[in-house]
Amino acid sequence: MFRFHFAAAFSVLLLAGSLAAEEKNQPMKFGMVIHGGAGTIERRNMTAANEEAHRAGLEQALRAGYDVLKKGGSSLDAVEAAIRVLEDNPLFNAGKGAVFTHEGTNELDSSIMDGRTLKAGAVAGLQHVRNPISLARLVMEKSPHVMLDGEGAEAFAKKMGIPFVDQKYFYTEDRWQELQKKKSSPGALSDKHGTVGAVALDQAGNLAAGTSTGGMTNKEFGRIGDSPIIGAGTYASNRTCAVSCTGDGEFFIREVVAYDVSALMDYKGVPVQEAAQTVIDKVGKLGGTGGLIAIDKQGNFAMPFNSSGMYRGTIDAAGKISVEIYR
Amino acid sequence: MFRFHFAAAFSVLLLAGSLAAEEKNQPMKFGMVIHGGAGTIERRNMTAANEEAHRAGLEQALRAGYDVLKKGGSSLDAVEAAIRVLEDNPLFNAGKGAVFTHEGTNELDSSIMDGRTLKAGAVAGLQHVRNPISLARLVMEKSPHVMLDGEGAEAFAKKMGIPFVDQKYFYTEDRWQELQKKKSSPGALSDKHGTVGAVALDQAGNLAAGTSTGGMTNKEFGRIGDSPIIGAGTYASNRTCAVSCTGDGEFFIREVVAYDVSALMDYKGVPVQEAAQTVIDKVGKLGGTGGLIAIDKQGNFAMPFNSSGMYRGTIDAAGKISVEIYR
Repeated sequence: MFRFHFAAAFSVLLLAGSLAAEEKNQPMKFGMVIHGGAGTIERRNMTAANEEAHRAGLEQALRAGYDVLKKGGSSLDAVEAAIRVLEDNPLFNAGKGAVFTHEGTNELDSSIMDGRTLKAGAVAGLQHVRNPISLARLVMEKSPHVMLDGEGAEAFAKKMGIPFVDQKYFYTEDRWQELQKKKSSPGALSDKHGTVGAVALDQAGNLAAGTSTGGMTNKEFGRIGDSPIIGAGTYASNRTCAVSCTGDGEFFIREVVAYDVSALMDYKGVPVQEAAQTVIDKVGKLGGTGGLIAIDKQGNFAMPFNSSGMYRGTIDAAGKISVEIYR
Repeated sequence: MFRFHFAAAFSVLLLAGSLAAEEKNQPMKFGMVIHGGAGTIERRNMTAANEEAHRAGLEQALRAGYDVLKKGGSSLDAVEAAIRVLEDNPLFNAGKGAVFTHEGTNELDSSIMDGRTLKAGAVAGLQHVRNPISLARLVMEKSPHVMLDGEGAEAFAKKMGIPFVDQKYFYTEDRWQELQKKKSSPGALSDKHGTVGAVALDQAGNLAAGTSTGGMTNKEFGRIGDSPIIGAGTYASNRTCAVSCTGDGEFFIREVVAYDVSALMDYKGVPVQEAAQTVIDKVGKLGGTGGLIAIDKQGNFAMPFNSSGMYRGTIDAAGKISVEIYR
């Protein structure tokens, strides 16, 4: 008798939980989901001021994307606009706030994909481009290639008339101290995965995704993570969904994470939330941590992660913003 | 009446065709499939001597892989051994025979993946490494990373004690002339996709895949194609299959080709031949040309391509070699 009541009460709790979750993840007519990186982000280690600054940064990026979408602009423009805001914010590991490599330089990676055409652009190893996401988009639109690298990519940037910044632009005291700390206790992979990303659905029903990062603190040997890899860190197709990832890049490459979410939807008919969670679970099983954001063509979205936190936020067709950091 | 007979006769023809195809693609207990690139390869443009040299090169690579597999060696060792032979052969666009970039340099890319562990290694933009496939393997086994690039990758190679070669090592008169021709008629993407690759199934039932290339003649701006991209040019998982691609790299990245073959098998239960053909058809629909080789854990294999030819060959458990070039 007790057992029966307990089970019934438990079912009611579960039902309430799933209703709440459903209400929370209402599909958007159009809108955007962004992330500012996943990793060891715990309430007890955050000051109120620091938390507030991160929230404000995410909201600013969401508004930049929304301004585009509301006017009937493309998801591609919205993704680029939101990521530029995050790249210009020193709090996030992309653009201005990029972490330092082992050699004390900053090397930035980014990629973007258009779900309507399956066109894509990616850049890796940039040292002097303020907004890598915009260069990735130029690669997609103005070159016959998908991926350009290092000095070659910067030569292309020069040809396109993109303004260059000095490496000093990317200097931030916090990141520099992170490098010193990492160098004095090497071995482990970085436990804080800074990367920023955005996925959007526009009023015309088109999907787009983009990702930008400074990579891993103390990275060596020209290491390339998942962020500039189409299929791993970024993917978008109007058939299925738009995805941007953040986490232990090596595991995201090996699991082809961004495309795997799409493949599960396409080939198994799985909804975006289930597909996204399944793939993050696969990453976890392999030993990797991180998260992803995904939105489908009906405006359903997912933001699963297996780390202690992920900076993330959404804005819907009404302009309603939701920002979260912890579990 | 006529219709009936015609239909019956047609059915018999179809049946005979599929039986022949089945006989030809008998599953192997263990074995290997390789390619030496797909593209505009037509009988009328080939001299007998040139054709014979290509066939001999493919056979030599197949034997190198088979020597490993027959002794009970791993599919990973077999893939590396076969690709090293192709990299050392000036006829194929990888290693020694790498094409020239716009700047007149040679920049080599490669990747390898272990189907048993899903571990992977990749290198891009190498200028002084004789056998990029072996460096990709060292990245997989001796670094925490999957992908290393350019000078950083070469610094890692030095640390690993890999012998360096001068850029002159990669000079071949034929490739140099190709560059001059390309420079005088620019615009179109290369119509001959040199890349080499191998996939193998060993006696323990493990799968592996590898790919190596000099990229596109006249490539600019540090262009990276699909060959060093896990998921695009190379993928292997014991759950499904091992795949190596060759073709218009940009389209193979956008379609996440190598992993897509695996995803179709995994999520739709499609056999390897159908999955491989489906994905090459998708590439064609998007406007790309090329081909791929794939082998599954039962030793079933496929070698579809949508160009006029693809250098390709197989060796089965009995050591029986088959080499083909044209349709």
